This record gives sequence, structure tokens and C-alpha cells, in this order.
Amino acid sequence: MNIFYAPPSQIHSDFAELTGQEATHASKVLRVREGDRLVVVDGQGGRYEGPVARISGHKSLQVKLEDRQHVTAPAPELILGMGIIKKRDRLEFAVEKAVELGASHIALFRSEHTIKKNVRTDRLESIALSAMKQSLRSWLPEISVSSSVDEVIERYSDVRCLMAHEKVSSAGGGNDVAPVADDEDRLLLLVGPEGGFSPAEVERAKEEGARLVSLGAYRLRAETAVVVFMSRFLWG
Amino acid sequence: MNIFYAPPSQIHSDFAELTGQEATHASKVLRVREGDRLVVVDGQGGRYEGPVARISGHKSLQVKLEDRQHVTAPAPELILGMGIIKKRDRLEFAVEKAVELGASHIALFRSEHTIKKNVRTDRLESIALSAMKQSLRSWLPEISVSSSVDEVIERYSDVRCLMAHEKVSSAGGGNDVAPVADDEDRLLLLVGPEGGFSPAEVERAKEEGARLVSLGAYRLRAETAVVVFMSRFLWG
Repeated sequence: MNIFYAPPSQIHSDFAELTGQEATHASKVLRVREGDRLVVVDGQGGRYEGPVARISGHKSLQVKLEDRQHVTAPAPELILGMGIIKKRDRLEFAVEKAVELGASHIALFRSEHTIKKNVRTDRLESIALSAMKQSLRSWLPEISVSSSVDEVIERYSDVRCLMAHEKVSSAGGGNDVAPVADDEDRLLLLVGPEGGFSPAEVERAKEEGARLVSLGAYRLRAETAVVVFMSRFLWG
Repeated sequence: MNIFYAPPSQIHSDFAELTGQEATHASKVLRVREGDRLVVVDGQGGRYEGPVARISGHKSLQVKLEDRQHVTAPAPELILGMGIIKKRDRLEFAVEKAVELGASHIALFRSEHTIKKNVRTDRLESIALSAMKQSLRSWLPEISVSSSVDEVIERYSDVRCLMAHEKVSSAGGGNDVAPVADDEDRLLLLVGPEGGFSPAEVERAKEEGARLVSLGAYRLRAETAVVVFMSRFLWG
């Protein structure tokens, strides 16, 4: 079954309203008709199901809310702080994967090694929306852009912070992955851009209580590091 | 330091010969000169270092082998069997990531849910080569294409086989990841294409001794499943 998105402001007492691309996609591409049953999520854990009650052109579509449930947020809560990656396709890939793996917030930041300074957050938000629906999730992460990693650390100063900082041994060898506290219910995971964090950024993060973790003996691309790091928390 | 590739046939007793794109890249793009020190890997664990002894146009470059070492293969050995993904960028991404994460063999296969039947293995091999160098690895995986997942299972009939087969609960919830035997030194990991494996494929794999594992409560795209599955074995 296809899943559609309507923000909480469009969830009313007895119906949800799809607008914009969601309405167009439903009525024009999928040729949804009145009476067809849809699932609607609000990106905040709200999940609704019911028949289409009314279609107004391709602009608005009302879904009667017969069934509603609240889906609890993924645990532990993973906040991903990620340096802006220069190559757009790799940045977009990382955002898509972070949503698939349940990030609650994707905090992009510029850092000393950041090459690209601007990102199209509208594109990233659209990718995040698709990924949420694709992965059958009900929570849509916020996407923000900060001017430094320090800003992200400060915002989450009350959250356990793990910073990926690889000690790469060029000849390979065994993994030296730091153990991670599994009993935290919120974690801030930091991944640098290409080239990683600068020594000053690492020092400041450590002063703020961040713990450095290695993602293994080999050099990983930034977007690979995001997936590897986050998937660590899929396994009990 | 940049790493270059020369297959074992081009590793001679006292020098390695770079040819083709590797030679062009070194001499033309990176403007390597005689006397510059290079690292050369042979994709079979051989890792060499020494000065450039001779440059012939942009076609051949000889590196004197002053230092040589054998890098042991990653353990456990991970053989990745992967259904051919329809979208080329996602397939290429999966191959790149599998190399970064140390697959010893990437066995692509057509399956009942495969939409795209042909792949450009030359492109994939080139991507694999870049990924090996990028991630500072010394082993280059074989890339093969089989006409069914059964063929892959049969080739590795002596290897412990884990088949990713998600039981997706559409409302999310806890993870139900099957525990994995960590004491195996070789594993065959199977990931289906979009749409996963067919019931018949799952049944036949089970008959051959494959163990079904879930990659969590949410639906993952095929290429995400590859990264998540493989990274399971990065963590001790």
C-alpha cells in the first residue's frame, strides 16, 4: 500500500488533507479514486488510514480518518550531525540513508574541511520525505544547516555525543572500533565531511565531552561512515 | 599518498608496471615524475612501495619495488550475493560500498524479482578499483553475474549462508534482528533486488541450509541493506 504524507497542520479531527505533490501524485500518477483506502503519516508518529472522501482537481485530496495510531519514535533516538559533503549525489545519498535508518534530526554543518558551503535543503527535504515513506516510517526528521560542528554539539549539549574519528592504518589490519554505550536513549552521532574533522574540531568536541569512536581499520567515505555508524544501533 | 593498482601479472621481481588508466592518471593527472615514491597494490594482498624508475609516455610507468608486504585478507571473509538492482546509480553505489566494507567477491545475480537483466561489469569493475584504492584496501573483489541466486548458493555450498529476508511490520516497532554466528571465518551474505526474494527462492535457500536474518523492523532499500548487512561484521 502506498503511504502519503500530510503535516500535522493538515490532520483535522475527522479527515487528513493531502496537498501539493502528495495530492498530485495520488490523483494523477497513482489514479487514486474516491473510496480507495490510503495510509497517511504526519511525520510526527501519527499514522492514519481511511478511504478517500473527496478529490478536488489534482490539488487537494481528503482522506477520512477511520483508523489512527501513534507510532513510537525509534529507540535509541539518533541525532545525526554530518559535515556537508561536496558531491551532491553523495550528500543526498547520506540523507536518504539517514532517514531510512531512523535519524530524528539531520544536522548538516560546515566545518574546517568543508569544501561546498551551500546545500539545497528543499531537495534534501523532498528526498527525506520519499525515504520516510519508502521505508514505511512515520517520523520525518528535521534537516538543518549549521555553520560549525560546535553549534550542533552546543544544541545537543545534554546528549551523549559520539564523534567518528578514524585512526586509519594504511596497511589495514584488525578493527579497533570503540565500544559504545548501549544504554543511552539519545545519541548525537557526528561524521565529518571528506577529509574528516580538523584537529581543532576534535579537541573542542572532546572538551565538550564527545567520545571519539573509530569505524574500523579502513578509510570510509563520508556517506558510508553515516550508514555504518547509524546501523550500529540497529543491532541489539 | 596516492595508491595505484597493478594486477599480479604486472608485478615483476624488482619492479611493478602501471599501464592503461593507472599510468595515465599517474603521469598526466597527478604529474608523477621519476624518483617520486608510489604505493602499488595488486588486489591480492600484495602492497609495494618504491620510487618511479621509468615513465614511457603516458602508457607505462615502472615502480621499483623497495618495500613489499602482504596484507592479510579481511576476516571474516564476506562474500556478497546481491540481486541486480534496477537503478544503475543504486547498483553502483552498492558495489562501491561493498568494496569499501571489504567484500571478497561480489556475486550479482538475476532473480525472480529482478527487473533489469544486464549490467555493465566493466563500469562496476572500474568503480570497485577506485573504491579499493580510496578505502586503502589491498584486496580487489571479483565481480560476477549469475543467472540465479541458486547458482551463487551452489558455488558457495561449503560456506555459511545468511539471507536477508525482512519481516516488515508496517507500523515499525522494535528490531528483530536474528543473531549471527560470529565465529565463522567465511560468510555468504545474500541480499535481494528491489522487492526482495520470491517465496520459492527463500524456500530453496532454506533447503540448502541458508539462515534467514532480518535487518530490522523497517523496509530498507536493497543498497542500504547491503551496507547495513556488511557493516554488521565490522563490529567485534
